[in-house]
Amino acid sequence: MLTLGDPPTENTLWFSARPQLVSCGSVVGPKEGSGPLGDYFDRVCPDERMGENSWERAERRMLMAAMDYCLCAAGADDSPPDVLLAGDLLDQIVTSGYAARHRESPFLGLYGACSTFAEALLLGCVLVDGGYRERALCATASHHHAAERQFRGPTEFGVQRPPLSQWTVTGAGACLLSRPDGRDDGEEDIAVDVATIGRVVDYEASDPYDLGSAMAPAAVDTILTHLRDTGRDPDHYDLILTGDLGRVGRDLARVLAQERGVGLTDDRFLDAGVLMYAGDQNVRAGGSGCACSACVFCGYVWRLMQAGVFRRVLVVATGALLSPLMCKQGDSIPGVAHAVSFTTN
Amino acid sequence: MLTLGDPPTENTLWFSARPQLVSCGSVVGPKEGSGPLGDYFDRVCPDERMGENSWERAERRMLMAAMDYCLCAAGADDSPPDVLLAGDLLDQIVTSGYAARHRESPFLGLYGACSTFAEALLLGCVLVDGGYRERALCATASHHHAAERQFRGPTEFGVQRPPLSQWTVTGAGACLLSRPDGRDDGEEDIAVDVATIGRVVDYEASDPYDLGSAMAPAAVDTILTHLRDTGRDPDHYDLILTGDLGRVGRDLARVLAQERGVGLTDDRFLDAGVLMYAGDQNVRAGGSGCACSACVFCGYVWRLMQAGVFRRVLVVATGALLSPLMCKQGDSIPGVAHAVSFTTN
Repeated sequence: MLTLGDPPTENTLWFSARPQLVSCGSVVGPKEGSGPLGDYFDRVCPDERMGENSWERAERRMLMAAMDYCLCAAGADDSPPDVLLAGDLLDQIVTSGYAARHRESPFLGLYGACSTFAEALLLGCVLVDGGYRERALCATASHHHAAERQFRGPTEFGVQRPPLSQWTVTGAGACLLSRPDGRDDGEEDIAVDVATIGRVVDYEASDPYDLGSAMAPAAVDTILTHLRDTGRDPDHYDLILTGDLGRVGRDLARVLAQERGVGLTDDRFLDAGVLMYAGDQNVRAGGSGCACSACVFCGYVWRLMQAGVFRRVLVVATGALLSPLMCKQGDSIPGVAHAVSFTTN
Repeated sequence: MLTLGDPPTENTLWFSARPQLVSCGSVVGPKEGSGPLGDYFDRVCPDERMGENSWERAERRMLMAAMDYCLCAAGADDSPPDVLLAGDLLDQIVTSGYAARHRESPFLGLYGACSTFAEALLLGCVLVDGGYRERALCATASHHHAAERQFRGPTEFGVQRPPLSQWTVTGAGACLLSRPDGRDDGEEDIAVDVATIGRVVDYEASDPYDLGSAMAPAAVDTILTHLRDTGRDPDHYDLILTGDLGRVGRDLARVLAQERGVGLTDDRFLDAGVLMYAGDQNVRAGGSGCACSACVFCGYVWRLMQAGVFRRVLVVATGALLSPLMCKQGDSIPGVAHAVSFTTN
């Protein structure tokens, strides 16, 4: 079992061309829309079903809508991006696969559970920074009811949710990355300078409800590796945004980091799963899902970066590699996390 | 629905540094071992279970063994590669996720159904060619019984297999890509010069047994896009190896290509699913699965490239984005294919 420790190689990629974040799109369901960040999203759907006859199709519609908002905001809605990198929580990443069917773009499907948002951004940056693609669209989605049905049990059963459980975010987020245009238009650009690929870390968590505990070690491993590889300390960032640790995982991550001599302070270390819902929204430990970090970043953080509130942000999307089948066969739930550093030029 | 037609963008990536294929590893089950290519694989397991108590764990063992053979052949078994790109057919790509847990390497999980082998190679080449990583390990696996259980029904049920069905290959393949060392050691190197990212193509196939028909349009779309983007004609290649179309899909692909004015002749256009098994092995239309193109390439084609029989090979791994759930909800089975061009320097 791989646990925390110094990775033998440098796991961080530097982007000399600094791929530019051109635009974002975010679409959420009604519960997310009535949370503290409700005003920041491009669209709040009043209906969790999006008029569709299944949760899975609703999730697909949300992903397509988020991509549309993103491309529209970039004024690029009539020209397909040069590559689409996408993934989601559903088996065979059907949300992404079927959404890609409606686009002309070449498609690369990814699976990193809830870390997929950062994985898509990281690989999108590599393709753009290396000069292989001009523009990369990176997108993820999740849906509470579709995820519950697949990973634990249909919500129609009305199973009581334990205190450590998290609420999968219903929504989708999309980012358009591009080669810098080189023009000095007087505006500040938001760009990616560096990213860190995470390792699979296993603390032998086995509770399919308590995913924060399963992901916290991976989040800390990736953050510490990132800081070691870049020579930065946590204060370099105005915000370190973890994906969806929730309250339990966030507190655990703080302890694990402290044990290794790194302090993650309250004002600079926030978790998307904690930010997404208010305390009275009955989500137990907080939000989770591929859409959690994607929507919080694309809706909230990106706008605050545009407004100059945050100038340097490290997005650490975290994934619990939970398999209901493997859990029943006695296997544990490993975690993985990838980090992407955004900076205002 | 996206069907065949000229893609609006150039979907092909050129690798100026020409990432080198250092070594391959291949592990297969007993049925594959008794097929026509049996002598080419690194290891033929006498037991489909690999001594494990489930098909899923057996698949994981095979993937780990293939990676070990690959690293060992490169003399690099004691130093982890700089990145592991892997995927498989099982939900949450558990084979890859759990196998990655035992390695120190940063991990990027991919899902492209049976096209995953080419997707991993393509992204591995980008990471190596762009100078982001020195060495990338690209690996995929599949297992007949695990795949049947998940996609159609447990083999223990003894369901009669229809004539168009394919047999998921039990096995795993791994490739180690590296930056060229620059030394002229007198030996010829096998390298990747170019790769094409595929689009999701949907001809509204709906039979979860007949995957060759679902994938053939995607294979042709990617091959034609590749030829258009590179200005090459099919004769440029000694071999165009499709992933796992089987006999039905291969014949269909040939017709679809012919309709668009491209002839794919018998001697240069082979399919891994047709090559893997003999006619009397009761596999109906041929082999399939993530391991199909991986094992045929890593076991057979790579050795023939080393021997100089093939000097230029285009690997077109094809994936049927089959979701049992979506099929039951009335959705079709889209296809996707990615192409990677190997050349002997």
